[in-house]
Parts: sequence; C-alpha cells; structure tokens
Amino acid sequence: MKMTRAQRLQLAATALGKRKADTVITNGIIVNVHSKEHIRDKDIAITSGAIAYIGDCQQLIGKETEVIDASGKFITPGLIDGHMHVESTMLSVTEFAKAALKQGTTSIFMDPHEIANVFGLKGVRWMHEEGQKLPLRVFTTVPSCVPATDTLEDAGAELLPKDVEQALEWENVTGLGEVMNFPGVVHGDEKMAQEIEATIQAGKTVTGHIPADDPKMLQAYVASGVTSCHETVTREQALEKLRLGMHVMIREGSAWQDVEQLAPIITKDHVPTDNLSLVTDDVYPQTLTELGHLNYVIRKAVKEGVDPITALQLATINAAKYFKCEDTLGSIAPGKWADLLFIDSLAEMKPSSVLVGGKMIYDQGMYKVNFPVYTYPTEAKNSVHLKKELKAEDFHTKTLTQPKVTVNVIEVLENNARTAKAKAELTVRNSIIQSNIKEDIIHLACIDRHHRSGQISNAFVKGFQLQSGAVASTVAHDSHNLLVMGVNKEDMAIAANKIAELGGGMIVVNHGKILAEVPLPIAGLMSDKPLEQVGEQVESLEQAWKKLGCKMNAPFMTFSLIALPVIPSIRITNRGIADVDAFELMPLEITES
Amino acid sequence: MKMTRAQRLQLAATALGKRKADTVITNGIIVNVHSKEHIRDKDIAITSGAIAYIGDCQQLIGKETEVIDASGKFITPGLIDGHMHVESTMLSVTEFAKAALKQGTTSIFMDPHEIANVFGLKGVRWMHEEGQKLPLRVFTTVPSCVPATDTLEDAGAELLPKDVEQALEWENVTGLGEVMNFPGVVHGDEKMAQEIEATIQAGKTVTGHIPADDPKMLQAYVASGVTSCHETVTREQALEKLRLGMHVMIREGSAWQDVEQLAPIITKDHVPTDNLSLVTDDVYPQTLTELGHLNYVIRKAVKEGVDPITALQLATINAAKYFKCEDTLGSIAPGKWADLLFIDSLAEMKPSSVLVGGKMIYDQGMYKVNFPVYTYPTEAKNSVHLKKELKAEDFHTKTLTQPKVTVNVIEVLENNARTAKAKAELTVRNSIIQSNIKEDIIHLACIDRHHRSGQISNAFVKGFQLQSGAVASTVAHDSHNLLVMGVNKEDMAIAANKIAELGGGMIVVNHGKILAEVPLPIAGLMSDKPLEQVGEQVESLEQAWKKLGCKMNAPFMTFSLIALPVIPSIRITNRGIADVDAFELMPLEITES
Repeated sequence: MKMTRAQRLQLAATALGKRKADTVITNGIIVNVHSKEHIRDKDIAITSGAIAYIGDCQQLIGKETEVIDASGKFITPGLIDGHMHVESTMLSVTEFAKAALKQGTTSIFMDPHEIANVFGLKGVRWMHEEGQKLPLRVFTTVPSCVPATDTLEDAGAELLPKDVEQALEWENVTGLGEVMNFPGVVHGDEKMAQEIEATIQAGKTVTGHIPADDPKMLQAYVASGVTSCHETVTREQALEKLRLGMHVMIREGSAWQDVEQLAPIITKDHVPTDNLSLVTDDVYPQTLTELGHLNYVIRKAVKEGVDPITALQLATINAAKYFKCEDTLGSIAPGKWADLLFIDSLAEMKPSSVLVGGKMIYDQGMYKVNFPVYTYPTEAKNSVHLKKELKAEDFHTKTLTQPKVTVNVIEVLENNARTAKAKAELTVRNSIIQSNIKEDIIHLACIDRHHRSGQISNAFVKGFQLQSGAVASTVAHDSHNLLVMGVNKEDMAIAANKIAELGGGMIVVNHGKILAEVPLPIAGLMSDKPLEQVGEQVESLEQAWKKLGCKMNAPFMTFSLIALPVIPSIRITNRGIADVDAFELMPLEITES
Repeated sequence: MKMTRAQRLQLAATALGKRKADTVITNGIIVNVHSKEHIRDKDIAITSGAIAYIGDCQQLIGKETEVIDASGKFITPGLIDGHMHVESTMLSVTEFAKAALKQGTTSIFMDPHEIANVFGLKGVRWMHEEGQKLPLRVFTTVPSCVPATDTLEDAGAELLPKDVEQALEWENVTGLGEVMNFPGVVHGDEKMAQEIEATIQAGKTVTGHIPADDPKMLQAYVASGVTSCHETVTREQALEKLRLGMHVMIREGSAWQDVEQLAPIITKDHVPTDNLSLVTDDVYPQTLTELGHLNYVIRKAVKEGVDPITALQLATINAAKYFKCEDTLGSIAPGKWADLLFIDSLAEMKPSSVLVGGKMIYDQGMYKVNFPVYTYPTEAKNSVHLKKELKAEDFHTKTLTQPKVTVNVIEVLENNARTAKAKAELTVRNSIIQSNIKEDIIHLACIDRHHRSGQISNAFVKGFQLQSGAVASTVAHDSHNLLVMGVNKEDMAIAANKIAELGGGMIVVNHGKILAEVPLPIAGLMSDKPLEQVGEQVESLEQAWKKLGCKMNAPFMTFSLIALPVIPSIRITNRGIADVDAFELMPLEITES
C-alpha cells in the first residue's frame, strides 16, 4: 500500500489540471478531520486510487471520468481500527473484510497473536498474506508475547525475537503488537527488550497492553519504550496514561466496553484528543451483524457526548498518525488513498457507500467487487492434537482432605476482561472434590491441544451459572488450549472429544447431546464459512449457553479469556491455576497455614 | 541521541525503585504538554540522562543522587525549533548553541542549506558533525534544493539525490530540508521526485516551503509527499494548509514575523493545534541577544493571545512528533531525555536554569559546562573566488535606448521575504543607465564568487533608501554569490574587493571608507568568533546601513534574500534578473511591445 512515485506524480498532474481525474465526487459535505470542519461546495478528484484535488473539479472531468453524485451525504475518511484481532470474529480475514467494509472500516491494524500461539510465524504470515489481497487495508503488528507468558502456560508455538525482526521487514507490518508481558518488560526480560529494540530501530510503533494500576509499573513500562495501551478502564487511568504521553486506545469490543467510562476524559476533562483513538480489540460475529464494527464504537462515543467529528478523528487520523501512516491514510486530503464513506448521519455512522482506493466497493447494500479467495494450507486446519479420547474421570479433582475442602475459584465478571479471586468450601466425596451448582461453583479444565501431552489441569469457576451440561472451546486466549467447563463430567468429555473431531471450535452439550457447535477449523480459531453462516452458528451457540442456564452477555467470549494469564487476577492454563498478580501458579486447594 | 536498550532498562529499574536516581528535581510545577496541565507536588527522577519517574521520588534518592530544588519554578520541556538555519545567525553551530541554550532551546532541526550551496555535502557534514558534540541536540534535515533552482542561478555546489540519500543515513538526520523548488516538485522534476521518494522510503520527514497561493499548486505539492510549510503569512493560508493535513510551522524570525498574522487561527478559529509548531527559520545575532530565540517566539504568541501551554506545545511536543522523535523528545514523561527548563513565568519564558540530558548546563546566568571546540578545515575558510579585482565600471548597465529607459526594478518589502515587481524610468547618459536616488532606485549587482567566472549581473533595486555609499555581502541566499548594492560605484567596488579579502562577510562603505564589516570566513557565511563579538560587529554594521540612509529593520537580512529565486516575485542572481512567478530570467530593460 505504499504509494509509488509514479502515483504521486499523477496526483500532482491532476491537481494542476494537466490530467483528467479517474473519478470526481460532487455535491457531498466533506468532513475534514484536520480542521474539524464540514466543507461544502467542493468536489473531490481521484486519480490512481488517491485524492488529487479538493475544490472545483469540473475541469478535471474527462470522457473517461466517473462522476459520483454524493448529494445529501457526508463524506468521511474510511475508518481505521488501530487494534484488533481478526481471530476474535471467528472469521477468516476475507470474511471479516466483507463484514467490516460495509460498516465503514477500511483499514485495520490487526495483531494476529491468536494464530501465532497455535502456528507461530507461519500463522502470522498466512493471515497477513490473506489480508494483502483484499479491498480492506490490512496492516499487521507482530505479536510480541507468544506465548503470553513463559512460565505459566504452553502454547502451540513460540515467536522469538528473530521471528519478530523478520516480520517487521514485511510490507505493511507497522509495529509490535500489544506487549502484554508488562512485568517482563519492566524487569528487563531479554525477549521483550530485544523485540522492543528491534521495533524502535525499524522506526515502527511499539503498541502496549498494561492493565496495571501501579504508577511505578506503568512508568517503567513507558520508559521501556511502549507507547500505547488499550487496557484502560477508568477515567483516572486514562488521564494518567495521557499525562505520560501514551496513546490511549479506547476500546469497545463485544465483551469489554470502555467507551462509557472513558468518554468523560473528552467531554468533561477536555483533554487534547490527538493521543486518543477508538479500537474494537475483540468483536464476535453477532456484534458485527447487529451493531457494526468501528462505526458502532463511534456511535457509542457520540451517544456518550463526544462530538461526531472528534469521534471520527479518533477513528481515522489519530490512528493513522500513531502508526506513522498519515502520509496516505486517515483524512480527506491530497495524497491520501481515496478511502471514503458516504454517510447520512455522522451520529449514526452507517455508510450507504464505501470507496477504497477510489473504487466504489459497496453501494446501496451490495458489494461491487469480488473478494479474492484465499486458501489456507491443510496444515492450518489440523491443529487439535489430543493424546487420547477424554473421559469423565479425566475431570476429577482429587484431594486427601475430608469432608470439606476450601479451594481457589476463578470468578468471571460480565463485560470485563478481568477475573476475581474467589474461594469456596466444597464437599469431598470419595476423595473427589464436588462442584456446587447452587453456589455456581462448577468444573473447569484446560487441556493441552498442541503437543499431545495428555496434560489436563482442573479447577473451579464461578459466574457462568450453568445448571447442567458442558461447554468447550479451542478459542482460549492466548495459548488456545482446549477449555472445557461443565456441571456434568460426561458432557464435558463429549464436548471435548467432539471439538477434537471438528478440528477446533466451540460447542455446547447437554445430557449427552450436542445443542450447538461452531466449527473453527482454521487453527481452531476461525471458520472457513461466511459471516452469515458463522453468525447463525454463534447465535445458536449463545442460545445453547442460555439453555444451560447462563444469563451472561457473550459468555463464550468471557469463557475464552479465562485462560489468559496476563490480565488480573486469576486464570486457568494447561499447567494449572495462575495467580496473575503474583505471576505464578497457585494451588487449587487452600490449606490452613 | 538514540536511547540505548541499556538506558531504557536503567530507567525502568529506577521507576520501579530498584535503582537510585542520578538526579531528583523537587518542588517544581511541572508543565505537562500532553494533558495541558500544571502538575504540582511531584518530583522528577532522572537516570542515564532521561526521565525515569514522576511522582514521589524520595525513595529514589541515594547517597550519589543530586537533589535539585525547583521551588517557585515552572519546569517545562526544553524548546525544540523545528526549522532553522544556523548560518543565518552568522555563528558557528557551537557559538549558536551557546546563544540558544540559555534561552531554553535544547533541540534544533537545522537545515544547513546555506553552507550546502557553497560546499555541498561536505559542508553539510561539517556542520552536522559540529552539532553532534554539543549539549544542544542538533538534528539535521538534508538540504533538498541545492542550488535552489537549476536554471536561474549558479551556486558553489550541488547536492544530488545520491548525496541526499547518503546523508539520510547519518544518525540524527531526520528528514528532507525545506523543499523550495515547489514548481519542480509539482511538475515532476526528477531530482525533487527522487529526493522525496528517498526520504519517504527512509521513514523520515519531508519538510516544505511553498509560498504559492494557487490552490492547485498547493494541493499538487501536498499530493507529491511534502508535509509541512513555514512560508505561511496569512490566516487564510494557514487554515487552507491545515485543511490539507499539512503541518504549519509558524515562523517568527528576525526579518519576517508571522506570529501576529497567524495567532488568530488558534485564538479565533480554534483549530486543532497538533499540526502547528513555532519556528525561527532565520534569526540574526542581535535578535538572539536582545529578544531571545524560540522562547521569544512563545512570548510573542502569548502576547497575541495564545495560552502559554498551547504555545509551549507548539514549541515542544508538536515539533518532536512531526519529526517522529517523540519517543525521546518533547515532553516531561518517562523515557524522554531530561531536557528541562526552570521558568519563573510561562508568558516570559526566560529560563533561570537549563538541563540537557539531566545535566544542569546553565544556571543563574552561567554555563556549567565547557563546550567542545570544533575546528573547520582550512578549505571551509577559503570560499570567495573572484576572477579579478572589481572596478566601478563593472557595475555599469548599458543600453542603446535614449534618453530615458524603462527598467524592471526589484522592490524589497520590510519584514517580508517577498519582493514586488516594480518599474522605473531612468535617465541614460553615455549609454549607461543612471540610478535615481531621489526615487530610491539604486544599483544592485550579483557576482559569481564560486567559480572565478567573472560573471556579474547588474540591476536596480528600490526600497533600501540608501543615500550614499555601498554595501556588500557574501550572505546571499541561497547561492551565496557576492551581492553588492550602492549609490556610488567606486564604493561598490571597494566593498566587493574588501569582502573578497576578508574571505567573505558583510560590509558597508561610504566615500571610500569602510564604515563597518562583519568577517564571515566560514564559507563566507559564518564567523569564527563568539556571539558577543559578532553581535557587536553586526550592530555596528546595522548602524552603518543607517548612516547610508536606510531606515529598514534588519536591512542586511532583507538584502541577503534579494538573490533568492524561490520566493516571489523578482530577484537578482549571478545570471541576471529572475522572474520568480514565471520561473525564468527577465530582461533589465522593458521595451515597448
């Protein structure tokens, strides 16, 4: 997506009137995100896919020029999502592009760290390559923490600093993906230091992830060279990060939603907004279908009182600048790619037409282009490797304590990426610790699915309110081992075995029957089906969760995070229960001391 | 000035409290240019020359830690001048640093295009090298237009695209210097296109210079890849450039002063200010002594109603961001070099102390460090090459027309870089066109001083109001040939010959006597003497101009621009009279058509 010298010369020639435009857009109201103005009575001339001139373009219309009438429409820059994981949509990059482009997202900076945890650098390369052929502009930040931790879990693959250095040389790789191992960063972990150094040397962007509240930790992190964060959940945290010069990415994903909490920094604290952007991080298919993509985040921000042009700045030019791509992206100005949206209402942000590179790709509810077909290698669809078929007794947790035992419990919180450390006193029968459905304490297991080790860790979880059955998922951030949770261990075994048969995915089982399944054969993370089909599958999965008794919003997303040992406070991994605060494994059983 | 990985690790260790700070500053009021706040009751901990932590730093004070009490002071980031020519100060980089640091300028982005016109790449290298050893952080933008034009003049040297590419690889070279040949840029001049392309490929900044008002020209220029301009003199121009996504450098130099005109874009139009910065461009020694440097520009902006923190943003973080140096420069935050000013009043911006890299280098009116001595090679001081001694008759302009002739006249405008096309009807005697002192039409000549060609072009100038004598200068932007102007041709010859004897400089002669001279032996542009001495020489030169009748502010600066054929509308070069608008030479004599 680098603009060539020849293209720039063509733009200049068009601006000067020496060459006709390929396309001229007339009669729209241009939204200028630099000056925060609505510009009326000016045309936009497009040549070689980019904007050549803004003004009276009548002289630039030749026989071959396409003239597009944008009467009654606002024209905005295409939206730019500065931090997101395509894998969370359960779609291939291609199918995600189809879902996102019609919502107005024309550029993404994806961090394919889910596939990296399964397949390493080659997985990153597959997704990046898939992205390069699409009408969506796909930029990649190289996953920095694969696996997320060295000591608490085992992923399917590892990215070493040399891999990161290699990927940083690929075209349209713009930086280092969210550096989640913040304790490693601040304490001088060799891998983290090497990756950060390589990114800075390459002149690219070091993106961050630091949910810590300790100012010492935060400032050490910033001093180490990380320049942004999307894990900001309170107004005070946001202010503190802005004061430190960080770029604060305000996140509104499907399962964690920070716009409401953070909008007051704009509407009440009136901070300079140039170091803010809007990002989605993780969205699941229904959100894409029902609410939209980054346009929904803008809508939400506007609803919270942010003025529409400011919200648009946060979703366009600010992200472009943060990734040093503002030469060609982020606004409607000469020299920028003609990625444009026609919008009836800036508050609603629902595009009626989408142009990418000057080409009308979506108009009046229809795509006007064919999307290329990307075929993942066979290897990509063979990622679930269990040692043996699972049985109910594999989920037993044994103890010598009698007749009750106190255990550490992982408590999940709705619409929140964090978990809480809980405790429960449970009954022991035949040396086996029993769940307590009444108190919502049920079984949870994490099974190695990468190395055929047969390793299973068992624990207890609170918050999902399952009354029967079991669920399982190979989407299990970030190592993506096989997660199984349930009230009934037979159902747990069925769920786990069926997932293996599908080659990965998500499933709900009750009384021995499969209620719903979402096959995700690509790395056990992504479907090879179109959005509509995946959306239906996921919808049916969510309904099935409800049938088991779960009342939570997007429970399978919260479930899939339960294995992520870089967000406080307590997690399960294939190795056991992880105390994220202490950054070490903790025992299941609490013995009196 | 790249921060090493080891330095970053030391900062993190200090932030975490694992290592004592080298320096702790207490009790100051920290000016945060990110959040636009005054931060009270926090200390600043410095390690390895950079800021490690902001907050309660008592635990970071060890036996070796220097504690600095900043009670009653504001602490601001060191000022960053995003566009300036050291040569205009007539000082070496070292002597300039001494003058600027105590005014609070801690970083400059210099464009050494004056010396480049005399010595080419080796001249650029000398000045860049001199800058690397100083407490002032000297970044260089590679001169892009040497000579300023290919067709209108002859400089002493040329910079080719391969030279630019080479210099872009030097450490602390951050971009391409003001691309003045805007007609070349927009019309696809090969050299301009190659240089811009090389800079973009290197991930560096393409800085601009476009005084044109034509929106087609301007937009073609932006589309060609240039991202800033410091030649903006009206509010409307500034708004237009901001709308195009350009970074607008608001200039306040000694001879052209744009703050008053442009401040209303902030105070009245309320534009987003993140694409604005304050720069000095060209200042001469007296300004440094009497008014200050970039701190004076801030003071001026505040006087025009800009709030002090906004003005400070424009002179710190905004410039750092524009040059992609915000990882280590531009604000008081962890990971940034500890370049700090102690200030009593933000409106006055007169630092009582200056720290660079955490080291107190200036305090209570005294420098606390020794500046290194840089010795220019002998060649650098041997740059005036005339073919022969000049005589009065060399300045004759001959014509066959009788008894009157109408000629094109270059009219200069006070405090304005532009010139106006004027005409005059002059008397002819013995085929020689006569000046007309009463109408302020006097002699002007531009003599090749680089190639011993003997080439002299003669013309007439209006606006300086000289009543007698002559002036001469080897500071003659940008080719720096030998400019001579006068009422009396004998005095013109004396002035020119004396300049050659001095090895370059500026001079005023009256009735055969030298009234004042400023020897500038380094490339005919810079003194090898300290600021005080040069300041006195220049002061005496300005007085001498007044004695000849000139009432203009900084006449020798305006004079030195009279040969610059990239700023409208009419100029003199060694080849003749240049019509800048048409970008071609024009005849002296106007014949009826």
